[in-house]
Amino acid sequence: MSRKIVVIPGDGIGSEITDSAVAVLKKVSEKYNLDLEFETHPAGGTAYDLCGTPLPDETLNAAKAADAVLFGAVGGPKWDNVDPALRPEKAVLGLRKGLGLYANLRPVKVADALVEYSPLKEDIVKGTDILIVRELIGGIYFGDKCESEIHNGAERAWDLENYSVPEVERIVKFAMEAAKKRRNKVTSVDKSNVLATSRLWRRTTAKVAENYPEVALDNLYVDNCAMQLAINPSQFDVIVTGNLFGDILSDEAAVLSGSIGMLPSASIGFSTSLYEPIHGSAPDIAGKGIANPVATILSAAMLLRYSLNEDKAADDIEQAVDKALAQGYRTLDLYKEGFKKADTKTMTEAILNNID
Amino acid sequence: MSRKIVVIPGDGIGSEITDSAVAVLKKVSEKYNLDLEFETHPAGGTAYDLCGTPLPDETLNAAKAADAVLFGAVGGPKWDNVDPALRPEKAVLGLRKGLGLYANLRPVKVADALVEYSPLKEDIVKGTDILIVRELIGGIYFGDKCESEIHNGAERAWDLENYSVPEVERIVKFAMEAAKKRRNKVTSVDKSNVLATSRLWRRTTAKVAENYPEVALDNLYVDNCAMQLAINPSQFDVIVTGNLFGDILSDEAAVLSGSIGMLPSASIGFSTSLYEPIHGSAPDIAGKGIANPVATILSAAMLLRYSLNEDKAADDIEQAVDKALAQGYRTLDLYKEGFKKADTKTMTEAILNNID
Ligand SMILES: CC(C)[C@H](C(=O)O)[C@@H](O)C(=O)O
Ligand SMILES: CC(C)[C@H](C(=O)O)[C@@H](O)C(=O)O
Repeated sequence: MSRKIVVIPGDGIGSEITDSAVAVLKKVSEKYNLDLEFETHPAGGTAYDLCGTPLPDETLNAAKAADAVLFGAVGGPKWDNVDPALRPEKAVLGLRKGLGLYANLRPVKVADALVEYSPLKEDIVKGTDILIVRELIGGIYFGDKCESEIHNGAERAWDLENYSVPEVERIVKFAMEAAKKRRNKVTSVDKSNVLATSRLWRRTTAKVAENYPEVALDNLYVDNCAMQLAINPSQFDVIVTGNLFGDILSDEAAVLSGSIGMLPSASIGFSTSLYEPIHGSAPDIAGKGIANPVATILSAAMLLRYSLNEDKAADDIEQAVDKALAQGYRTLDLYKEGFKKADTKTMTEAILNNID
Repeated sequence: MSRKIVVIPGDGIGSEITDSAVAVLKKVSEKYNLDLEFETHPAGGTAYDLCGTPLPDETLNAAKAADAVLFGAVGGPKWDNVDPALRPEKAVLGLRKGLGLYANLRPVKVADALVEYSPLKEDIVKGTDILIVRELIGGIYFGDKCESEIHNGAERAWDLENYSVPEVERIVKFAMEAAKKRRNKVTSVDKSNVLATSRLWRRTTAKVAENYPEVALDNLYVDNCAMQLAINPSQFDVIVTGNLFGDILSDEAAVLSGSIGMLPSASIGFSTSLYEPIHGSAPDIAGKGIANPVATILSAAMLLRYSLNEDKAADDIEQAVDKALAQGYRTLDLYKEGFKKADTKTMTEAILNNID
């Protein structure tokens, strides 16, 4: 029985990096007889140009019917002046809501070989291995909003931040389960000294934690977490937080790792999940064949692990990437003297050659 | 005509650091005949213990009647289980609202002598000199909120993020004026790809900017700003943003500077303004006489500059601090071998001696 992977390259470097990841998936598919089937669909600005909408129904429906979705990236200056409701980002938000992608997993692991690329000093960043679990279909992203109204005689706009107990329970359980497979520590991040939503978040989290006596739970205010990530990132194991705080903190953590071109993500849905690099569509280097494909290839490994339960194939890919780095291959974003300068194709082949 | 400064030491190290700053203010007051008068009032946990409320009416009224307020810090584990409405932080929020402290100024300047304390690599952080202008009495901090309600059959809580055109105009004008006295660059931070409030923020900012053709305006999403602060902080001059994003980004920026014990802040009000160090009440070292008084002393310099228009006295204090650092004095938080280890008193005296 074949398993269908819907590939959504998106815009910019999207097709180059998903091509690389698909090549790697095909290689492990042959090796382990995974019987993967691929189907490509448009989204983002490319889809807007083709069909007048960033997320065509066909794309969303295909994604819903798939065993997993591999996503590239969307966006670019070309679509800056498009009506906000039709901008490339809307494809991202539409897929999240449409597939019910409630848990966004952002591992931030700093490989020893890449420590030097971090903006942080080596002794601070070394050993960092964080899993950020961000709630992805609730909070202020999807609350009611108002673009303009008159209130007390002035024009104002508003957005409703909100979380329900079941939403918090769902994501905190996910984080607790993840921590059990890691180092048994969860840091929940909120702003409960100011926000009512955060107070509900904090008390619900405490209740869920009662069912996980083996996991240590810590609570941090979001401003403090933004500081701790910079001065002592290796203190963290799993961080769980809401949609908006997760957006900010996961990007901060990513960049502190020094290798944003290497970081994958998984967005876990009720039936189908989606995998994508955390970096963007990099329109400035699109079509040049020089993009770093590693984040997307590692996202494909997460796909095998979380959606298809193919842990061995996932391990193979992760080891092949580590080996390619150890062999000295570096794409332009990470290139330094003394290493082997690799374009997208060379990097991909180096990784493919490490899968035997 | 004497000018009245209300001193609110607060909790923890609060009284030690405000004592130091008052000593410095007295010294420049004598030198320049500033005729300052000081009056001390309780707030925070200390006030809760004394009067059952973190912000007694007497304190707020005295602050309103003052020419300026010098604030220490509030909070501590002693009051962790106090009713949320009576926690020490409520004093901070109450003073902000009560005095109308609409603009929070957080300068983050990395002195060359202190570059090595940054968690960032030297070549990244060197030369950083940012002024963060955070809106302080609006946004989700003071929007309507609901601790608990039943919605679609589940318990939820919510908070209303909201900004009006006049609120945005006020803070952006402030930022533009500040930029004119600096390097003529303003970066406005929002999340306009998701939030309606941010879209109003962005279009209002663009309109205000039309009146400042000499100032370059940039817009950044908050997640991108959290990254840029870590990888290229010296690109920024003035950053202007809302209350919640400002809370997170100003703490991130502060810690990246490496010397959170050195950073002052000003909160500008409609008639009275308030000055405080950005660090907390450090209950673990309270009463030991070892706290770093520099952030509070530099806050006193901002007080002279912004509330009393005594630029020369402010310059004197800032130069005296620089000189004490150049002389090798370091409080425990920054002490390294080869320097002069200073407790609060020694550091304060070193600074006093540099004012002649
Ligand atoms: C594109 C944007 C809507 C999105 C978000 O804010 O979630 C992005 O920043 C992300 O983190 O995936
Ligand atoms: C104590 C707290 C309410 C406050 C805030 O969130 O504004 C603090 O973090 C700050 O930045 O001054």
